[in-house]
Amino acid sequence: MTLNAVLAAARERVDSFLTHSLERSDRPAEQLNQAMQYALLLGGKRVRPFLTYQVGQLCHADQNVLDHAAAAVECIHAYSLIHDDLPAMDDDSLRRGQPTCHIAFDEATAILAGDALQSLAFEILSAPGLTVSPTAQLSMLNALAIASGDRGMCAGQALDLDATAKQLIEAELARVHRHKTGALIRCAVTLGVLAGDAEAQQWRADFESFADYLGLAFQVQDDILDVTGSTTALGKSQGSDRAANKATYVSVLGLAGAQECLHNLHQKALHALRRIPYNTQTLESFAEALLNRDH
Amino acid sequence: MTLNAVLAAARERVDSFLTHSLERSDRPAEQLNQAMQYALLLGGKRVRPFLTYQVGQLCHADQNVLDHAAAAVECIHAYSLIHDDLPAMDDDSLRRGQPTCHIAFDEATAILAGDALQSLAFEILSAPGLTVSPTAQLSMLNALAIASGDRGMCAGQALDLDATAKQLIEAELARVHRHKTGALIRCAVTLGVLAGDAEAQQWRADFESFADYLGLAFQVQDDILDVTGSTTALGKSQGSDRAANKATYVSVLGLAGAQECLHNLHQKALHALRRIPYNTQTLESFAEALLNRDH
Repeated sequence: MTLNAVLAAARERVDSFLTHSLERSDRPAEQLNQAMQYALLLGGKRVRPFLTYQVGQLCHADQNVLDHAAAAVECIHAYSLIHDDLPAMDDDSLRRGQPTCHIAFDEATAILAGDALQSLAFEILSAPGLTVSPTAQLSMLNALAIASGDRGMCAGQALDLDATAKQLIEAELARVHRHKTGALIRCAVTLGVLAGDAEAQQWRADFESFADYLGLAFQVQDDILDVTGSTTALGKSQGSDRAANKATYVSVLGLAGAQECLHNLHQKALHALRRIPYNTQTLESFAEALLNRDH
Repeated sequence: MTLNAVLAAARERVDSFLTHSLERSDRPAEQLNQAMQYALLLGGKRVRPFLTYQVGQLCHADQNVLDHAAAAVECIHAYSLIHDDLPAMDDDSLRRGQPTCHIAFDEATAILAGDALQSLAFEILSAPGLTVSPTAQLSMLNALAIASGDRGMCAGQALDLDATAKQLIEAELARVHRHKTGALIRCAVTLGVLAGDAEAQQWRADFESFADYLGLAFQVQDDILDVTGSTTALGKSQGSDRAANKATYVSVLGLAGAQECLHNLHQKALHALRRIPYNTQTLESFAEALLNRDH
């Protein structure tokens, strides 16, 4: 299978699982249900589910367990986008070319849809009867909770808001991104390993190291594209980060410095992968494609 | 021990556990941490933790497991209060006589503090090494997730917002409250049972029935006090629900009708308790005190 075919298969698989997850009975608040579906199922690359599926397959995890893990991570990601877009936060009215949730519905509904999607993530991942040991499933839940909260993603968004219009050094900028986006990307990989067999657990640190470098490199590439990319390819205004007066890798390191940083992170991600004695070719190709993208 | 002593002991125990839970390292966002602590530790009756401890003790649960369960439920409750108070929701600037979280901090921080408290609830309840079977612990996590989301508390808040300025019939009003406050009160009791021994599981439905009637009775009493109570005793303006143009049990049933409804719910709660062959005297006294309160 080509990388694009693998990516498409992961996307279709998690989207189908998420659609089914929303079809439970006893959901009395119709507008809330619609807002959750709108935010969860209107596109997205499904980078995190892809990582969970890929790593989990290498680690010999059960496919149905990976469905639950991938869907749970994507619910957390979707809720964070809804809340980040709110007027009190980043105040964005468009995402992926569509009105954001609080524009399509209203602010109260958007807050509740985000809240309920976080609950749904933990509901899905705590489902009874999965083909994984209950202890491993508990570890997966614990990892997801830690990645989402005040030591992970929520802390990152708070640090990011606090950093607006401030001059940051590279280590501070990395700290924002390691929490805001890195924690959940790493968790997507961790869940794949935890769902896997006993042997796979010894490569957990290497898989996570790969995820850490990949997540940071992705962000550096984002900052480079904000300067070099065209508005058409990006789907947002070229230069919008600079306009928002946010510190970026380009503003901190310069364009050439950011490109060198990207290269170094990419190499470190590959080195981490090469310590793992599994066939990581698809993950390598994915890193390559992600970091050479033009949007 | 008197009821008040039992209540105070539960409150102190869960507050101490929550304080300790917030003292983890690696929490990089200082203002977020402060907002979480502010919302979680500034008072409250701790009704839900009390129920978890009481029911759990009757069911022979491990005390440390109950600490985790009670704290997790209280984290969900605290997050819901932060988000319910937001300008886009109920727009309240005072809670328990103190500025609400978004007034004491800012709106973005309040949204994030709520989000991170929800994550913390699931982090606490998925802690490794608890003295309960991993399968029971997974059931507890699943019950908490379901009670919190689009079939529980979040749905209730959405239904409540939707019902403002509408004429409801009694069944619709009950549906709002069964979700908005009832789901989490029931869950507090469910977690106590699930943490208990095998024998206790057969009384789960009766314990939950008690919780359902108690939760609804508590709400009816709230509506009665809004009409008959004094502003001083209530700590909020007497008649504030009527002023907010919300349907209440008094507006739907009249004062005498609401009082009769309260009496019936109280009796049904006691009947459910009496089917359980444990010493439920403290729970009976608690129901009595809660439903005869003047604030």
